Amino acid sequence: MPKKPKKIKDMGKIRIVPLGGLGEIGKNMTVIEYENDWVVIDCGLGFPEEDMPGIDLVIPDISYLEANKEKIKAVLLTHGHEDHIGAIPYLLRTINPPIYGTPLTLGIIRNKLEEHILPWNPELRTVNAGTKVRLGAITAEFIHVNHSIADACAIALHTPLGILLHTGDFKLDTSPIDGEMMDIVRLGELGREGVLMLLCESTNSERPGFTPSEKKVGASLESIFATHSKKRIIIATFSSNVHRVQQIIDTSAHHKRKVAITGRSMLNIVKAATELGYMKIPAGVLVDINEIKRYRPSEVTIITTGSQGEPMSALYRMAFSDHMQVSLDVNDVVVFSASAIPGNEKLVGRIINELSKNNVEVLHDAVVEVHVSGHACQEEIKLMLALTKPRYVMPVHGESRHLAANRELARYMGISDKNIFISEIGKVLEIDANGARWNGTVTAGKVLVDGYGVGDVGNIVLRDRRHLAQDGLIVVVATVDTEERLLLSGPDIVSRGFVYVREAEELMEEARSIAADCLMDILDYEAQIDRMQMKKRVKDELTKFLYTKTKRKPMILPVIMNV
Amino acid sequence: MPKKPKKIKDMGKIRIVPLGGLGEIGKNMTVIEYENDWVVIDCGLGFPEEDMPGIDLVIPDISYLEANKEKIKAVLLTHGHEDHIGAIPYLLRTINPPIYGTPLTLGIIRNKLEEHILPWNPELRTVNAGTKVRLGAITAEFIHVNHSIADACAIALHTPLGILLHTGDFKLDTSPIDGEMMDIVRLGELGREGVLMLLCESTNSERPGFTPSEKKVGASLESIFATHSKKRIIIATFSSNVHRVQQIIDTSAHHKRKVAITGRSMLNIVKAATELGYMKIPAGVLVDINEIKRYRPSEVTIITTGSQGEPMSALYRMAFSDHMQVSLDVNDVVVFSASAIPGNEKLVGRIINELSKNNVEVLHDAVVEVHVSGHACQEEIKLMLALTKPRYVMPVHGESRHLAANRELARYMGISDKNIFISEIGKVLEIDANGARWNGTVTAGKVLVDGYGVGDVGNIVLRDRRHLAQDGLIVVVATVDTEERLLLSGPDIVSRGFVYVREAEELMEEARSIAADCLMDILDYEAQIDRMQMKKRVKDELTKFLYTKTKRKPMILPVIMNV
Repeated sequence: MPKKPKKIKDMGKIRIVPLGGLGEIGKNMTVIEYENDWVVIDCGLGFPEEDMPGIDLVIPDISYLEANKEKIKAVLLTHGHEDHIGAIPYLLRTINPPIYGTPLTLGIIRNKLEEHILPWNPELRTVNAGTKVRLGAITAEFIHVNHSIADACAIALHTPLGILLHTGDFKLDTSPIDGEMMDIVRLGELGREGVLMLLCESTNSERPGFTPSEKKVGASLESIFATHSKKRIIIATFSSNVHRVQQIIDTSAHHKRKVAITGRSMLNIVKAATELGYMKIPAGVLVDINEIKRYRPSEVTIITTGSQGEPMSALYRMAFSDHMQVSLDVNDVVVFSASAIPGNEKLVGRIINELSKNNVEVLHDAVVEVHVSGHACQEEIKLMLALTKPRYVMPVHGESRHLAANRELARYMGISDKNIFISEIGKVLEIDANGARWNGTVTAGKVLVDGYGVGDVGNIVLRDRRHLAQDGLIVVVATVDTEERLLLSGPDIVSRGFVYVREAEELMEEARSIAADCLMDILDYEAQIDRMQMKKRVKDELTKFLYTKTKRKPMILPVIMNV
Repeated sequence: MPKKPKKIKDMGKIRIVPLGGLGEIGKNMTVIEYENDWVVIDCGLGFPEEDMPGIDLVIPDISYLEANKEKIKAVLLTHGHEDHIGAIPYLLRTINPPIYGTPLTLGIIRNKLEEHILPWNPELRTVNAGTKVRLGAITAEFIHVNHSIADACAIALHTPLGILLHTGDFKLDTSPIDGEMMDIVRLGELGREGVLMLLCESTNSERPGFTPSEKKVGASLESIFATHSKKRIIIATFSSNVHRVQQIIDTSAHHKRKVAITGRSMLNIVKAATELGYMKIPAGVLVDINEIKRYRPSEVTIITTGSQGEPMSALYRMAFSDHMQVSLDVNDVVVFSASAIPGNEKLVGRIINELSKNNVEVLHDAVVEVHVSGHACQEEIKLMLALTKPRYVMPVHGESRHLAANRELARYMGISDKNIFISEIGKVLEIDANGARWNGTVTAGKVLVDGYGVGDVGNIVLRDRRHLAQDGLIVVVATVDTEERLLLSGPDIVSRGFVYVREAEELMEEARSIAADCLMDILDYEAQIDRMQMKKRVKDELTKFLYTKTKRKPMILPVIMNV
């Protein structure tokens, strides 16, 4: 596509270092370095995989940034979703660069920071679409895009070598709720100037066509309200989708319904968005959730959290008859105005089943069009490529399958394979006057957050948790006198998660006697008495015995005490 | 729909007792009782939910059948899928009723039974579509239906009170691969005679329209083979989908490709289906997987297991470079000719990502039409209702959401609410001359299979496994002399799955000293020394301490030995 590529200026070196968001969904974070002026784009969190039991959150390993903190001129945020800002409170534990974001993005961060004690006051700096910020030799420019949260931006970095454009999360919405289409004019201008590198999101790169406009959901809501005029309407959606919530409120007002809001994050965001002017609530429409009993079903809409089936969310509690103010029955219709994020299908299904069982009508995205994606489908990615005419492309924000599909689109648009770079976290791409090439790696990875612990749960702990979950545990305890070669007490056997002991007394007794024989044998006959060796023998013998009997391999923990 | 319902004959009582498959996907099993002549339709297994760590399989609780074994005239099988026949080897441990099924169904069962030692020879009796079997006062009639496995049947039970029709799993395929459309003529004849009760499957009852014909997949395969003529083609599908495998072989033969088969269950089924005549393999097409190196990529198709992303399946091993004979690269295209069963999306995604990372092209059902469902969509369920004109309807085979959606379809077809029965496992529906009504419950539930253990893992064991997985374990061991009030040894602390101990020495040392203080305090000051009380105090103190420090609640296991 770039017909006669200009020579890249001989003005030093750029390095692009992703620290998260590639080969995975979540924890998006990219470092762009121009000599000693570095900027970080986004700082998100991820959610644990199934093989990480007990883990609350996953954040990027930022030791590379900690070791270079004096070079970091700014963290630039594209928008306020967790996978782009969620690791900010953890980053701020060790380094304190200025953080730039739009008003809603920073509003959400301020809210989050209230729950964290930090060693300093963070420097939050408000920008708007169109703002340019000078950061050493780099100038960062925020450019309006459409997405499933208001106030989202792409970021152009003007460097001495040329322009790097990071799309952030985007879609093209010609009829967005806030009236502002993605700034394709500015993107086109950058394309004319010449974009050296496009970092383009890949979430929907497997999906053909265009993502429908948010306005389409409005039409579906209108028809649901019209056909369910006698019922109370409960709508679950992402709390951060300010425009969706606005549309639900508008449709309710149009149908003369009061709106009650439930769920902590939903209440928080509606408050923040209203204060900042991103949401306009017609006077008299909002009522407290405690007031809804005064109205007939036909007069009330409830907006709630729980669209992903989260246990303990407001909707989950309603479904399982555990919500203080709302109990559901045949006079209710529950609308899932969201699609299940991959991995959450079963949780969402659990709520739908419980509601169905209790004769509550359920509408979800497989049945009616009550949700649209916030991410660019294939035609929008092609449009982005056509507008910005980049010399180099790096697909970001996606699992390997999405990055590969995004590469296909770049190929389709005529970008040659050698100019498309599929990177990994920690992998360094370098650009200078001679072109772009891989150049080594830096430390990068997953840091697991479990309770107050950040990084104290690693592979060994997780492996043990998985083992314990699989077949449970047998603890064998004995007290010996190694001097006198006496078994003073035990062996006692305690098990958890292995078998129901009351019904397996015989098995446990056999296990105990095998352990006892093993210990006596060593005490009686071994030349040298070694507690490590005693433990190992007991463990091996019991593992073998229990596997033969049950085909299970519980974790066996021998504890031999010496008196 | 039934315009002038005839009076039900005053000829005794029928009871319908589901033991599995309602409010869940899997372990389908229904008991139909006419006085002392009982038949059981299907005997399937289910797969464990995420909250059942370590469990291999779930089977129905059949204690109700064991207590009434002399009444059971037969187990009737609709088709050979695991969720309809998988619990047969477990049923045969305690009772030995005659089992009726079509040749392929029984062929698959014989294969399974080779891995089980049973107290008797099972009585497997072959039937075919059209066969009628007299079972006391009940006559069972097998009726051909289309499904994603060959040789599937609906079952009509002719009883003195009227006809009960159980659809089994079905779809209407006007162009099936084996040439036989579902026997709608016979179903219509039964409708004219008068169907007292229709038990209708609900899997796809949320999906509008008709399920496409299996033949549609053939057309997609043809186009994939045409456009990928230079590449080796690897296709993963369900091994039991004999017609799918036939189509892949036929398309390969047409494109002059050899076919190699890998994966144990795929090899087994192809063998059984070929022997029984359900599959016809053109001469010279099949080659051993060890031979494929002799051919160019364009000359080979590989049919493999692993379409659900199962770890250790042949496809999984290929993707992760762990398959003996097949290693994949840019000259390969992998086709998922299956859709992910809910809950398996992440597993399938893991393979797709790994393949994408290694530049292997992947085609799956979101991108091309390489799979069709085996279950009736809404229009086919309506057709079934229109043909059979049942007086009563019971939706079966589905989660609550599917049963509720199926009820909507029955309503739409004019069946009044009072004649539609949404049942649960163990819930008894009784029909006699006065009509149909609920009448109590019988024992029913889930029995968990873990290794050799059947039913020895229950709620307590699972709760412990989940707790251990969440935050790990702390074992506190001490030896005391309660007579002399001495702490002889310990307390020692052993932890697994809690924190990485080498980096948390201080925390563990603090915990040890809290436990020591606790024990000393009791030994020194308590009037009465009670080991239970010692354990409880240590547990409570440590739980409190660790939660304050880490916000985690590991399982705490104190073991106090007395000498």
